[in-house]
Amino acid sequence: MLGDKRKKEKSLELGFGSKNYQKTVRFLNKDGSVNIKRKGGKGMDNIDIYHWLITTSWTNLLIVILSGYAITNTIFASVYYWMGFQNFGGILGYDGPARFLDLFFFSAQTLTTVGYGHVYPNATNVSTVAAIESMCGLLGFALATGVLYGRFSRPKAVLLYSENVLLSPYEDMTGLMFRVANTKQNELIEVEASVVLSYSNPETNKREFERLELEISKINFLTLSWTIVHPINEKSPVYKVNKEELVKRDAELIILIKAINDTYSQTVYSRMSYKAHEFEEHAKFVPIKQEVSTEGSVSINLTDIHLFNKTL
Amino acid sequence: MLGDKRKKEKSLELGFGSKNYQKTVRFLNKDGSVNIKRKGGKGMDNIDIYHWLITTSWTNLLIVILSGYAITNTIFASVYYWMGFQNFGGILGYDGPARFLDLFFFSAQTLTTVGYGHVYPNATNVSTVAAIESMCGLLGFALATGVLYGRFSRPKAVLLYSENVLLSPYEDMTGLMFRVANTKQNELIEVEASVVLSYSNPETNKREFERLELEISKINFLTLSWTIVHPINEKSPVYKVNKEELVKRDAELIILIKAINDTYSQTVYSRMSYKAHEFEEHAKFVPIKQEVSTEGSVSINLTDIHLFNKTL
Amino acid sequence: MLGDKRKKEKSLELGFGSKNYQKTVRFLNKDGSVNIKRKGGKGMDNIDIYHWLITTSWTNLLIVILSGYAITNTIFASVYYWMGFQNFGGILGYDGPARFLDLFFFSAQTLTTVGYGHVYPNATNVSTVAAIESMCGLLGFALATGVLYGRFSRPKAVLLYSENVLLSPYEDMTGLMFRVANTKQNELIEVEASVVLSYSNPETNKREFERLELEISKINFLTLSWTIVHPINEKSPVYKVNKEELVKRDAELIILIKAINDTYSQTVYSRMSYKAHEFEEHAKFVPIKQEVSTEGSVSINLTDIHLFNKTL
Amino acid sequence: MLGDKRKKEKSLELGFGSKNYQKTVRFLNKDGSVNIKRKGGKGMDNIDIYHWLITTSWTNLLIVILSGYAITNTIFASVYYWMGFQNFGGILGYDGPARFLDLFFFSAQTLTTVGYGHVYPNATNVSTVAAIESMCGLLGFALATGVLYGRFSRPKAVLLYSENVLLSPYEDMTGLMFRVANTKQNELIEVEASVVLSYSNPETNKREFERLELEISKINFLTLSWTIVHPINEKSPVYKVNKEELVKRDAELIILIKAINDTYSQTVYSRMSYKAHEFEEHAKFVPIKQEVSTEGSVSINLTDIHLFNKTL
Repeated sequence: MLGDKRKKEKSLELGFGSKNYQKTVRFLNKDGSVNIKRKGGKGMDNIDIYHWLITTSWTNLLIVILSGYAITNTIFASVYYWMGFQNFGGILGYDGPARFLDLFFFSAQTLTTVGYGHVYPNATNVSTVAAIESMCGLLGFALATGVLYGRFSRPKAVLLYSENVLLSPYEDMTGLMFRVANTKQNELIEVEASVVLSYSNPETNKREFERLELEISKINFLTLSWTIVHPINEKSPVYKVNKEELVKRDAELIILIKAINDTYSQTVYSRMSYKAHEFEEHAKFVPIKQEVSTEGSVSINLTDIHLFNKTL
Repeated sequence: MLGDKRKKEKSLELGFGSKNYQKTVRFLNKDGSVNIKRKGGKGMDNIDIYHWLITTSWTNLLIVILSGYAITNTIFASVYYWMGFQNFGGILGYDGPARFLDLFFFSAQTLTTVGYGHVYPNATNVSTVAAIESMCGLLGFALATGVLYGRFSRPKAVLLYSENVLLSPYEDMTGLMFRVANTKQNELIEVEASVVLSYSNPETNKREFERLELEISKINFLTLSWTIVHPINEKSPVYKVNKEELVKRDAELIILIKAINDTYSQTVYSRMSYKAHEFEEHAKFVPIKQEVSTEGSVSINLTDIHLFNKTL
Repeated sequence: MLGDKRKKEKSLELGFGSKNYQKTVRFLNKDGSVNIKRKGGKGMDNIDIYHWLITTSWTNLLIVILSGYAITNTIFASVYYWMGFQNFGGILGYDGPARFLDLFFFSAQTLTTVGYGHVYPNATNVSTVAAIESMCGLLGFALATGVLYGRFSRPKAVLLYSENVLLSPYEDMTGLMFRVANTKQNELIEVEASVVLSYSNPETNKREFERLELEISKINFLTLSWTIVHPINEKSPVYKVNKEELVKRDAELIILIKAINDTYSQTVYSRMSYKAHEFEEHAKFVPIKQEVSTEGSVSINLTDIHLFNKTL
Repeated sequence: MLGDKRKKEKSLELGFGSKNYQKTVRFLNKDGSVNIKRKGGKGMDNIDIYHWLITTSWTNLLIVILSGYAITNTIFASVYYWMGFQNFGGILGYDGPARFLDLFFFSAQTLTTVGYGHVYPNATNVSTVAAIESMCGLLGFALATGVLYGRFSRPKAVLLYSENVLLSPYEDMTGLMFRVANTKQNELIEVEASVVLSYSNPETNKREFERLELEISKINFLTLSWTIVHPINEKSPVYKVNKEELVKRDAELIILIKAINDTYSQTVYSRMSYKAHEFEEHAKFVPIKQEVSTEGSVSINLTDIHLFNKTL
């Protein structure tokens, strides 16, 4: 049975706790995010705006920026309108709505520091508000610069994992293996993988976590693809275990890959998990075609990474 | 007695010196800051403005920015006023105070580069000052951008520690334990803890520092909470030591936690200390409730971290 | 024969795969870039704009910025023109092309937030577009700030390698050696080198990768030049191998150097490769002249790094 | 004699070469900078502008910014003047010099994007140049933002070293010792020191480098001061060596300290060197006074670090 064919060493503590849940739980989502939520409790500020601005989608960010711009201008326009349009010099509309619109655009011109000047503040109260608004504009823009730079320069490893984990013939035994490739133009160097198997233990009614030994756990360059192999020998927790039992035990393969992004010399992390139903028995990866161009450079096609053949 | 039940190994040097103070001294404050001040002596510049701007509260920063803005505008307005209002073109007030106010707002429009232009410099002297002012505005704004980005991108681990250190039953002995959780939305990975006990030694009249062995000193993810446990066996400096003696010896538990912030791949540090009066004997932590949502994700409530029950 | 004179240890996995190509393949280009292309396959986004902006030449970046500026202005000018020139106040040209040009410059003044105001939007539709344009200008500028900072602050080691690898007399045997120097004004500290030899194995029809032992693999400062030496003893894969055989076996010397850039305390990497035809037998490096100035500082001339003499 | 009382182990390679100079050479200056110049040779670009902008003094930077601003404005004003003042609308001076000045200030208002608009471009040629100038202004300002942020965020350890190295009584032998303290408000943690002695060897006419064993080479916090001690036992290269011989052998003590700046979690380096004439025999450091305030915090005076007493 899974994990009990060998004497187990000191229990591995991954940080997910050992509670066994009645239903199937996925600790890591397919995109590597952790499937656990922390609630703040009463009165505790649990919101991290900068983290959200850095990690949200570009669409969300654009919506936030544009609606923030519109709302800020509406608020300042309302203040100006309330203070009185007669405090402004220059060309203004003839009725209330037109004047409000002109003040709205005056606000936009102040916030962005364009300041055409065909409308201008002509009294102390509105001049003061305009001085504050242009200051806010600069600070808001400073924030936007930081957020955009933070998004771009954030270290991330965008790895492509094969869709399945295979239980393939390996040397004279079986190997648990999956493939990984870099999808970005930068180079990943000093790439290290660690693989942990999590499964429920019906005897103790707890989840167990065991590290799987890898044939090679570190490579210097991830230029082509890397087939990460766990040789299933007698010391392996999955020795003589088939897919059916892995599914029954709600097994999850938790993968952590650490590398150095060569462009920025930053350490980057990639996480991924496979649930037992994504395992394939009696299957073998199709080697990825490497084509040599006339100039002597080698190219591969990343989508080949998923391909495998069934064996008998 | 504390620390003298075992042969001590090479003395630990934490960097706090070994002087024993007459009154109770706390080396680390509850927020992890170091409770030691360095004076510069005569003529030595000991002020680090950028450090202050990065680490001060948002309220202080806002006060500095707004008063800096007001003061700069007042200075430039005074220079313009002293140079003579007749050097400006456009619409200006009819008396001195009104003119000064107009020049104040002209200064604000120049510093923020809004430049409406209904007031404009019309002579060499004020044009020169205005050219310098707009340059200063840009540089000041460049500084503000740097400070805001520096504040946001600064690596920090905001950990929540349990309010008390418990001396709880642990396996078949007693364990010194406290709990820690991540309060932020980012994930902390490769989390390492080290715990040092500091106490005064009446024989040598010096403070001693001893590292406490931990049951587990490193976990892969800090997703839920982590109970950090020091098993109190014969090798422990607190073997058969009770709270009363710890208080008498002015004991302090100094905690350092090192982790990697997953969003920025940055190494972050958290420090914390407990004084002896924050220890609880005969107490046991209440397990933190883990709820599984219908989508299979797990959630916890952070405020549960402090809860414990008294045992007999 | 190359590599088969000694029992080989566990095969080295560099991440280039072990496929043997019919024609000569260079894994690393002379500038250290990896000579392998990854294609995205159908529908996969393989373009990384930020990476390109950071790593492209200054000329390319300038072309992108200037043409982006011209195109954006043309688009906005067209929108303004299509909305109608009568919606603008101020001085405009008398015929269509002149008006279009005036709107083009109005657009440039809006995008850069100069906003002179001699032309100004005077209706809701064009005011709205102008408000959006000035916002785009600020965001585009925020991006440019990030890209420029990213380019400048990017960690890079700009090392100068000797043009040739020499097989020189070394102690009482032969050494494989090359020289390296820092071309920048910053200091490189904690400099580590690792050297791998890649060659094709006709028996297995695969490429082999073997790490070469270095006399000294780490130095504290790279202030002068560093001669990196692999002593060719019986354990070396190139023991009793001459240049002719290295060329026949399509050998490539792959060099990785890791250092800390002292100015930014950043880890930087340098890569380089020599193909077999760049090896020189019976040659010896000319020592680099070190001149002591009258103030006691030492200076060297970097171009001396390539010089060698033929020996008999 | 220095260094020859013990069997020497594998020679230490610091990266300064082993050449022995006729006159006294200092490898590291007192401020930690390396006293070696690399010349580019013919045609090689050896200038690194960004490095200079980041590391030069604030005075130099201000001079560069202001003169760059003045020169750029003069160039653009000349272009505008050459194109013809009649191409500008608005209020311009009546004679040539006054017009040139007005165009100079127009240029400043364009470069900083203030754009009051009392002078404005009114023809295609000058409008085009103005559009380019405002673009340049934004890019130049983006550069300034990057440089200012780069300067402020640059990791640096500003350590204060005692003026002298003492040969003091230490336990029952002599110790070579100096003191170091952090002068900044941030905390330095995980502080590691390594000390190397360099001296000329008259037998081989080369310089030797030997690492000195330290009593404690790593501390957790550098909150007070740290006395770094090399115990002079039989294995030490300075065993039974006096100051006179150290001076004769042109000895230099090269110190490297590595720490983590707690505010930014950045690794920082400090370097320092002492020449033999800065050694003091028969001297003992005066302990630094630690004062406990009423709130329980400890304070020290940094200038006390240099104080020592002569012993007999």
